Amino acid sequence: MSGTLFGVGTGPGDPELMTLKAVRVIASAKVVVSLSADAKPGLARTIAAQHIADASLELVIDMPMRVDPAEGQAAYDKAVVTIRRHLDAGDDVAFLCEGDPMFYGSFMYVLARLSAVYPVSIVPGIASPMAAAAMAKMPLCARDDAFAVIPAPLPDARIEALLEAADTAVIMKLGRHLPRIRALLDRSGLTGQTIYVERATMDGERLMRLGDLPPDAAPYFSLLLIARDPVTS
Amino acid sequence: MSGTLFGVGTGPGDPELMTLKAVRVIASAKVVVSLSADAKPGLARTIAAQHIADASLELVIDMPMRVDPAEGQAAYDKAVVTIRRHLDAGDDVAFLCEGDPMFYGSFMYVLARLSAVYPVSIVPGIASPMAAAAMAKMPLCARDDAFAVIPAPLPDARIEALLEAADTAVIMKLGRHLPRIRALLDRSGLTGQTIYVERATMDGERLMRLGDLPPDAAPYFSLLLIARDPVTS
Repeated sequence: MSGTLFGVGTGPGDPELMTLKAVRVIASAKVVVSLSADAKPGLARTIAAQHIADASLELVIDMPMRVDPAEGQAAYDKAVVTIRRHLDAGDDVAFLCEGDPMFYGSFMYVLARLSAVYPVSIVPGIASPMAAAAMAKMPLCARDDAFAVIPAPLPDARIEALLEAADTAVIMKLGRHLPRIRALLDRSGLTGQTIYVERATMDGERLMRLGDLPPDAAPYFSLLLIARDPVTS
Repeated sequence: MSGTLFGVGTGPGDPELMTLKAVRVIASAKVVVSLSADAKPGLARTIAAQHIADASLELVIDMPMRVDPAEGQAAYDKAVVTIRRHLDAGDDVAFLCEGDPMFYGSFMYVLARLSAVYPVSIVPGIASPMAAAAMAKMPLCARDDAFAVIPAPLPDARIEALLEAADTAVIMKLGRHLPRIRALLDRSGLTGQTIYVERATMDGERLMRLGDLPPDAAPYFSLLLIARDPVTS
């Protein structure tokens, strides 16, 4: 009997936003896998730390923040060799992902390599748009609103089409794209309806109107919530 | 000192998918508010049942499944009078929502009425698309995918524009709209890439290719996941 591969969402940052199931699965896994970025412990590992059993074996995949895609895939290929060895030995393996594993999560790269061969179980987690909306006390979508999740690296024309088609939106992965996105939202007349949220549910979380954000802002774990008119009735 | 109004997401159905924070807030709230539909306990109340303290006062807002909008608003207006009385007395009030409170959640109608007057705290929850994707082991979005959440009651032209603009999508609130949505996806050539998920993480959950769903299906707590090509590397 091989072990089960668990993809576990640890939620957005506050350890109290882990689910009961995530805590149970992490605490009982023989092997716990996480990504580290540039040799610093990854966010998912930090969130889950207090639930990892002393007896668990930890496997860390080093994944530089700006990795060449082929190098990134090679890192997953290499990690999967070790993960397979543990699964073959009958040990359960919990792969930690901040947020939700199926929402821009790194787990899907491991899933794609192993789901045909091993039993897999996925524990969903709170994704960052929900955490940001809770912090901002601003609905993501209500009634029959269409809601779009838009990665900032997409070309302007695609972002404009998505904003046009949806009623409300979140723009993710701002990074170095922030100045271009600000200009785009200004042109679209949406700046006044946009809230900037940084590090939602983590230490140092902050929130402000996009118009109040300094031009030299260096966003980190941040996103933009683009609202329609408030739900008032 | 007035009490705090908590909007608490209970997640999609499995009580183990509640967060540690949701459990703590519900267990310690003096007053717990939930919706019931046609006199049956609501889903959020059922999910959270084991964490509601015996000493808590429960307030149930009856909200028929197909309520006239004005009647629905009147029911919130009436409930808010009672909620205010408890907050004024200094008691914390936890309003339960299945899924996430800011993602099509009923809490936002109470929030709109009270957020200017009382301290509010929102506890995010696992939303149904994440639960369905975990069950289907299918990514909602990866890398720079744009992801759309589309309510089925929208007109065909709007749904088509959203499907065109996004890389991946979820169609929610199927109900009586299912035959029309099936026809639309057939015309768009998307049926083969669409998974039907019903009651994800609840008793009786099921999942199948949309093409395998009987034409007379009566969807309940169901949605469609529309995938792009699988993430293989």
